[in-house]
Amino acid sequence: MESMMIYVPIVLALLGLVYMIIKQSWVMKQDAGDGKMKEISDHIYEGALAFLNAEYKLLTIFVIIVSVLLAIVSYVVPTTHWLIVIAFICGAVFSAFAGNIGMKIATKTNVRTTQAARTSLPNALKISFGGGTVMGLGVAGLAVLGLTAFFIFFFHFFMGGEWTNTMDMTIVLETLAGFSLGAESIALFARVGGGIYTKAADVGADLVGKVEAGIPEDDPRNPATIADNVGDNVGDVAGMGADLFGSYVATVLAAMVLGNYVIKDMGGSISDGFGGIGPILLPMAIAGVGIIISIIGTMLVKIKSNDAKESQVMGALNIGNWTSIILVAVACFALCKWMLPGTMQMEFFGEGVQEISSMRVFYATIVGLVVGAVISSVTEYYTGLGKTPILKIVQQSSTGAGTNIIAGLATGMISTFPSVLLFAGAIWASYAFAGFYGVALAASAMMATTAMQLAIDAFGPISDNAGGIAEMSEQEPIVRERTDILDSVGNTTAATGKGFAIASAALTSLALFAAYVTFTGIDGINIFKAPVLAMLFVGGMVPVVFSALAMNAVGKAAMEMVQEVRRQFRDIPGIMEGTGKPEYDKCVAISTQASLKEMLLPGILTIGFPLVIAFLPLAFGMNRLAIAEMLGGYMAGVTVSGVLWAIFQNNAGGAWDNAKKSFEAGVEINGEMTYKGSDAHKAAVTGDTVGDPFKDTSGPSMNILIKLTCLIGLVIAPILGGHTDDGLAITTEDGTVVAITQDGRIKETREVQKEVRFAMAERDGQFVGTVTITTDDNGELSAEVKEFTGTEAEVKKQMDAFEASLRNK
Amino acid sequence: MESMMIYVPIVLALLGLVYMIIKQSWVMKQDAGDGKMKEISDHIYEGALAFLNAEYKLLTIFVIIVSVLLAIVSYVVPTTHWLIVIAFICGAVFSAFAGNIGMKIATKTNVRTTQAARTSLPNALKISFGGGTVMGLGVAGLAVLGLTAFFIFFFHFFMGGEWTNTMDMTIVLETLAGFSLGAESIALFARVGGGIYTKAADVGADLVGKVEAGIPEDDPRNPATIADNVGDNVGDVAGMGADLFGSYVATVLAAMVLGNYVIKDMGGSISDGFGGIGPILLPMAIAGVGIIISIIGTMLVKIKSNDAKESQVMGALNIGNWTSIILVAVACFALCKWMLPGTMQMEFFGEGVQEISSMRVFYATIVGLVVGAVISSVTEYYTGLGKTPILKIVQQSSTGAGTNIIAGLATGMISTFPSVLLFAGAIWASYAFAGFYGVALAASAMMATTAMQLAIDAFGPISDNAGGIAEMSEQEPIVRERTDILDSVGNTTAATGKGFAIASAALTSLALFAAYVTFTGIDGINIFKAPVLAMLFVGGMVPVVFSALAMNAVGKAAMEMVQEVRRQFRDIPGIMEGTGKPEYDKCVAISTQASLKEMLLPGILTIGFPLVIAFLPLAFGMNRLAIAEMLGGYMAGVTVSGVLWAIFQNNAGGAWDNAKKSFEAGVEINGEMTYKGSDAHKAAVTGDTVGDPFKDTSGPSMNILIKLTCLIGLVIAPILGGHTDDGLAITTEDGTVVAITQDGRIKETREVQKEVRFAMAERDGQFVGTVTITTDDNGELSAEVKEFTGTEAEVKKQMDAFEASLRNK
Repeated sequence: MESMMIYVPIVLALLGLVYMIIKQSWVMKQDAGDGKMKEISDHIYEGALAFLNAEYKLLTIFVIIVSVLLAIVSYVVPTTHWLIVIAFICGAVFSAFAGNIGMKIATKTNVRTTQAARTSLPNALKISFGGGTVMGLGVAGLAVLGLTAFFIFFFHFFMGGEWTNTMDMTIVLETLAGFSLGAESIALFARVGGGIYTKAADVGADLVGKVEAGIPEDDPRNPATIADNVGDNVGDVAGMGADLFGSYVATVLAAMVLGNYVIKDMGGSISDGFGGIGPILLPMAIAGVGIIISIIGTMLVKIKSNDAKESQVMGALNIGNWTSIILVAVACFALCKWMLPGTMQMEFFGEGVQEISSMRVFYATIVGLVVGAVISSVTEYYTGLGKTPILKIVQQSSTGAGTNIIAGLATGMISTFPSVLLFAGAIWASYAFAGFYGVALAASAMMATTAMQLAIDAFGPISDNAGGIAEMSEQEPIVRERTDILDSVGNTTAATGKGFAIASAALTSLALFAAYVTFTGIDGINIFKAPVLAMLFVGGMVPVVFSALAMNAVGKAAMEMVQEVRRQFRDIPGIMEGTGKPEYDKCVAISTQASLKEMLLPGILTIGFPLVIAFLPLAFGMNRLAIAEMLGGYMAGVTVSGVLWAIFQNNAGGAWDNAKKSFEAGVEINGEMTYKGSDAHKAAVTGDTVGDPFKDTSGPSMNILIKLTCLIGLVIAPILGGHTDDGLAITTEDGTVVAITQDGRIKETREVQKEVRFAMAERDGQFVGTVTITTDDNGELSAEVKEFTGTEAEVKKQMDAFEASLRNK
Repeated sequence: MESMMIYVPIVLALLGLVYMIIKQSWVMKQDAGDGKMKEISDHIYEGALAFLNAEYKLLTIFVIIVSVLLAIVSYVVPTTHWLIVIAFICGAVFSAFAGNIGMKIATKTNVRTTQAARTSLPNALKISFGGGTVMGLGVAGLAVLGLTAFFIFFFHFFMGGEWTNTMDMTIVLETLAGFSLGAESIALFARVGGGIYTKAADVGADLVGKVEAGIPEDDPRNPATIADNVGDNVGDVAGMGADLFGSYVATVLAAMVLGNYVIKDMGGSISDGFGGIGPILLPMAIAGVGIIISIIGTMLVKIKSNDAKESQVMGALNIGNWTSIILVAVACFALCKWMLPGTMQMEFFGEGVQEISSMRVFYATIVGLVVGAVISSVTEYYTGLGKTPILKIVQQSSTGAGTNIIAGLATGMISTFPSVLLFAGAIWASYAFAGFYGVALAASAMMATTAMQLAIDAFGPISDNAGGIAEMSEQEPIVRERTDILDSVGNTTAATGKGFAIASAALTSLALFAAYVTFTGIDGINIFKAPVLAMLFVGGMVPVVFSALAMNAVGKAAMEMVQEVRRQFRDIPGIMEGTGKPEYDKCVAISTQASLKEMLLPGILTIGFPLVIAFLPLAFGMNRLAIAEMLGGYMAGVTVSGVLWAIFQNNAGGAWDNAKKSFEAGVEINGEMTYKGSDAHKAAVTGDTVGDPFKDTSGPSMNILIKLTCLIGLVIAPILGGHTDDGLAITTEDGTVVAITQDGRIKETREVQKEVRFAMAERDGQFVGTVTITTDDNGELSAEVKEFTGTEAEVKKQMDAFEASLRNK
C-alpha cells in the first residue's frame, strides 16, 4: 500500500474511461434508423459541432489571453510558479474535451433512441441512458484523471514525491488551482453561452413557428427547429457537464487545500501509511471510488416492460441513484477510517484547537450526501407536476398572465426558505463535525456520484431530441409516445439536477472560500470593517446584474432568430408546403454567434470585478491583507446572493414550465376542467416565456458565477497574502516550538513553548521595533523584550534578521 | 450656551409642530367644495379612520405583548432597565399619532385641492403641498420631540444630568432604543399593512370595474373605488410617514450611540461647551435644525401661472428641495465645527486609533447628502417616462406580456448596479472620513430634510385623491386636467421618494449595525466562522421570503375584494345605472381586515427570526459572544439582501408602471405610433399588474424589515454581550492608561503605557492563569509575568481580583 495510494485514484479514473469507451462503442453500434431520421440527426450533430467549433475558437483566444496574464503574474510574484499556466491550459482542454465527448455521444444517441423506441421502450431507455452514462463517465473520469495526474506531477516536481512541509504543499496546491481555474473558465462559456443559445433558438422557433405560422413544435418546416434541438444538447448536456466538471475539480482541490491545513494544525507533519498526506489524498480517493460506484449505479438502471409508465422509469433511475449514494456513504466510512489519523487537531477560528476523530469527518460526508438528496426533494416539491405550488400557479392563471407571473415569482422566492435553511444547516453541521475540512469533504462526498447524476441528467435532453426526431421524421404516434415517457421523466430529473448543481456549487464555493482564507493567511473576514462590508454589498449585487444581462442576452439573440425565421418563411418558395428546404444552418449560425457575443459582458463582469477589487487598491498602495479581506467580503456576497438567485430563478422557471404543462392533461379551475388553448393556458404560456431564461440561462449561470469568483480569488490569493506564516508555530532546529505573531495577531497552538510578538511604531519621528518573547518553561512564564530603533527600513531589516535567526536556531 | 444645548432640539421640534398647527388650520379653512365632493371626501376620510381604528386595535394588542416581553427581559437582565418599556410604548404611540395626523390632513386636503383646482392651479398646488407639509412636519416634529425628551429624561434619571462615564451613557442609550423599537414596530404595521391594503383595493377595483364591467377608473358606481382612494392614503401617506419616522429616530439614535463610543475612544470623557456630550448631541442638533430648514424649503414651493405644466411644478418642488439640502450642508458645517472637539481619537477596527478632525465628520455628512440626491436621480433614470430603460420595455411590449415582464425584471435588476455601487462608495467614504460615527452622521444629514421629503411625497397621493374626487363628483374636465398635472408630478416624486426611503433605511441599518457591535462588545463579525456564515445565508433569504409572503398577501386580499365587488354588482339593483348606492364601507372593511390579517406572517418572520437565533442557542448554553456574532451575521445578510431586493422591486415596479403610462400619450414601436388599447398596451398592463405589489407592497416593506431587524438586534444586544470593556483602555487613578486584553484580543490605543494580557489554560489537570504586563516607559519596554494556579474558579477569582486592583490603583 503505502504511498502507492496516490496512484489509486488515477487508476480508478482510467477504469472509468475504459468503461466509457466500451459503452460508447456499444451505443454507436445500435441501429441509427432510416434515411430521414439519419438526415435530421446529422443536422443536429453538425449544428452541435458548428457550435463547438465556434466556441473553441473563442475559447482559444480567451485561454491565450488568460495564460499570458497568468504568466506575467507568475513572473512578477515569486511564490507563483509558471507551471500554473500549463495547469490552466490543461484544465481548459480537459473540460472542453469532456464537453466534446458528451455532445458527440448525445447527438449520436438521440436517433438511436428514436429507432429503438419504434420497437421497445426498455431498449430506448437502455440506449438513451447509455448515452448519458458515456457523458457522465467522460466528465468524471477526465476530471479525476487530470487533477490526480497534475497533483502527482507537482508533488514530485516541488517536493520530490515526499512530504517536506505544509508550505511546499501549499505551492503544489496553488499551482494545481490553475487546473481548476481552466476547467471553470470553460464552464463559464459552456453554461452561459449554452444557456443563451438554447433559449434563443427555443424562443425564436416558438414565436414564429408555433405562434405566427401555427405549425407544431419540432416541425421540419421550421428553419429554427434544428437549432432548437441543438440547443438542448448545447445547454443541457454540454453546459451541465462543464458545470459539474468544474464543481468536481474545485471541490476536490479545496478539500486537498484544507487537508494540508489539517496537517499544519497537527504540527506540520503526520505519519501515516500514505506518506504523511492521508488527509490530502482522501478527497481524491473518494472521487476515484465514486467513479466505480457510479458505474455500478448505472448498471442498475433498467426496465423490463414495454408498457412501463413514467413512474417505473423514474423508479429505475431512483434505484441506481440511491444505490450509488448508499455505496458512497459506505466507501466514505471505510476511507475515512483507513486514510485519516484516528484523531486530528484542527483549529477552529476563535475557539482554538480541537481534537477531531476520523469518524467526525465521516459524519461530515454524510451531511453532504443528505444535502444532495434532500435538495432534490425540495426542488421536486416546488416544481413538480401535481404538487401544491404548481396547482396554485395554475389557479392563478385563470385571472390572467399578471397573477400567473406573481404566483410563479412568489413560488420561486418562497422556495429559498427550505433550501437556504438546508444549506445553512449543512454548513453548520459539517463545520461542527470537522471544521472547514468537513465542509469540503461534505461537498466531495456529494460530488462523488457526479457520473451517475450526469447520466441521469443527460438522458433527458437525449430523449427530448429523440422525440423531436420522431416528430420531424414523421414516425408512428407510438414512437413519440414512448419517447415522451422518457422525456417527461427527463424533465423531472432536469429540475432536480439543477438543485444538485446549485447545492454542489454552494458547498464548493464555501470550501474554496475557506481555502482562500487559509491561502491568504488573513485571520478571517470581518464585516465590521466598512470596506469589507461595502464589498459584501457589491458582491451581493453582481449575481443580480449578471442575471439581468443573461436575460437580456436571450432577448436580443431571440430577436435575431425571429427575424431570420420570418425571412426564410417569406423568401424561400414552397417552405410551408414542405417542398422548399429551410436553411437550418443559418439559424444554427445565428444562435451560435449571438450566444458567444452576448456572453462577453457577463463574462467580463464575472472575471473583471474580483480583479478590480484586488488590483485597484493594490495600485494605490493599500495594505495587502486588507485587500484580501475585502476580496473575501466580495466572494461571500457573490456566494450568498448567487445561491439565493439561483434557487429563486431555477425554481420559479421550473414551476412556470410545469404549470403550463399541467394544462396538457387538463386542470380543474373553479370547478371547471380547463385545457390547452384556454385563456388560462395562454396566461400560463406567458409565464413559461418568462421562466425559460430564468431556469435555463440566468439561473444555472449562477453556479459558474459563484465558483469562478471564488476560484479567481484563490488564484489571486498568493499575491495578496501568500506564504505568510505570521502567527503560526515554527519548529526551530533545537526542537523548540516558537509562535511568531505580527500586527497583534495571535494564533494559539498547544505546543508553543515560546511566543514571539513583533510590533513596530513611529515615535517622535523615529521607528521603534519591539520584539516581546514570552517563554513558557513548563508553566513558568518569563518575558523578555528586544528593541530596535532607526529608520523604517533599518528597523525592518533588523527585525527580519532577528526572525530569521529564530527560525534557523 | 453650555449644556442648555440639550434643550435646543426640543425647542426646534416644538417650533416645527407650532408651524404645523398653523399650516393645518390654514388648510382646514380652505373651501371644501359642494355637497357631492364633500360627501365623497367624507367617505374617504371615514374609510381611512376605519382602517386606523382597526389598526390601532391590533397595535394595542401587539404593543401589550411586546411590552410584557420587554418587561420580562428588563427583569431578568440586570443591565436592561424597565424604563425601556415606557420608551417602547411612547415610541409606538408617537409614531401612530404622527400617522394619524398625516392621514387626517391628507384626507381633508384632497377635496380642498379639487375645489381649488376648479379655479386655480397655483392654489391647488399650494393646498395639496400645504397638506403634505403638515404631514412632514408632524412626523419630523414628533420624532425629534419624543427622542429628545426621552433622552433628557434618561440623561437626568441615570446620570443626574451630568457626564459620568460612557458605561452609564450606554445604559441611557440602550433604554432610548426602546423608543426607536416602538416607532419601527408601528412602521411595520403601517408600511406592510398599508401596502397590502392599497394594492388589494387597487387590483380589486381595477379587475372587476375596469376589466369586467368596463367602467372608468374612480367611477362612483364601483364599490371598491372609495377603498382604492383610502388605500392611497393608507399606503403612500401613512405608510411612508411611519417608515421615515422610524428611520429618522433610528438614525439619530445610532449616531448618538456611536458618538458615545467616540468619547470612549477619547479616554472616556471630553471637555467641551456641551457638558462633555457634544458628539452625542450633534445628531439631535442636526435633526432639530433640519426641521426649521425644511420649513424654509416648503415656503419656497410655489408656482404663479395658471397654465403651468409638469416641469414648472417639478421645478418649484426642486427649488424647495435643493435649497433645504444646501442649507443642511451649511448647518452641518457650522454644527460640526461648533459642537465637536477640533480633533477626536476614533478607533478603526484593525487599524488602531486615528486622529479625526471635526471637518472630516462634516465631510461624512456631505457624503450622506450626496447619496440622498444621487439615488433620486438613479431611480428617476430607471423609472422615468421617456428614459431609455422605459422605452426599451415599451418596445418589448410589442412581442407580448412575456417579453414585457422580462424587460421589466431586467431593468429592476440592472438598476441595483449603480445604486449598490453608490451605497458601497458612501459606506466606504463616510467610514474613511470618520469611522462608523461618520456613517451614522451621513445618514443623519440625509434624514435632516425628512420633513421636506415627506411634504413632497405626501402631496402626490393628495393630488391623486383630488383627481379621484373630481372624477367621482363629475367636475369639468379642466379640474381633472389640473389635478392630473399635480398627480403626474406626484408619480415621479413617489418613485424618487422610494429611492430616498431605501437609501435612508440602508444607511440607518448600517449605523444600527455598528451600534450593535459596540453594544455587544464583540470584536467584529467574522464570516469565516461557519455559524456566522450560515446566519449570513439565512439573513439573505429572509427578505426574499418576506417579499413573496407580501405578494401572496396582496393576491389573497385582492381576491376577496373581487368577490365582494362582483357580489355588489350582482345583488344591488340599479348600481350600474347610478340609481343604486354601492356599499363602499363593505369594501373598506374587507381591505382593512385582509391587510391586517395578511401582515401577521411576514411580521412574525421579521420579529421571530432574530429572536430564535438569539435565544435558541442561548437555551443550549452556547457562548454569548458567539451568538452575538451569529446574530450580527444574520443582520448583515438581511441588510445586504434587503437593500438589493428593495431596489430591484421598487424600480422594476416603477418601470412597468411608467411603461404602461407611456401608451397614454402614444409611443412609436417599430416605426408605428401605438396607443392605449393596442396589444402592446395590454402587455404593458400585465406588466403593471406584476409591478404593483412590487413597488407598493413588497419593495417598500424591505425598508422596515432591515431596520427592524437591526433594531431588535440592538435591543437584544445587552443580553448577549453587554457592558464588557474587555480590551479597552482604562485610566487608573495615578493617571496610567492601561489596556486590558483578554482571550488574545488586543485593541491598540496610542497612549497606552501598560498592556496587560490575561490568558488562562488547563495544564495537567490544573488551571493556570497568566497575566503578562508590558510597560512602555517612553520607549523602554519591559515585561513582567504573573501566574495563578488552582481550580478554574480559583484562578478566575484571583485574576478578577488582580484586574480590579489594577482598575482601582
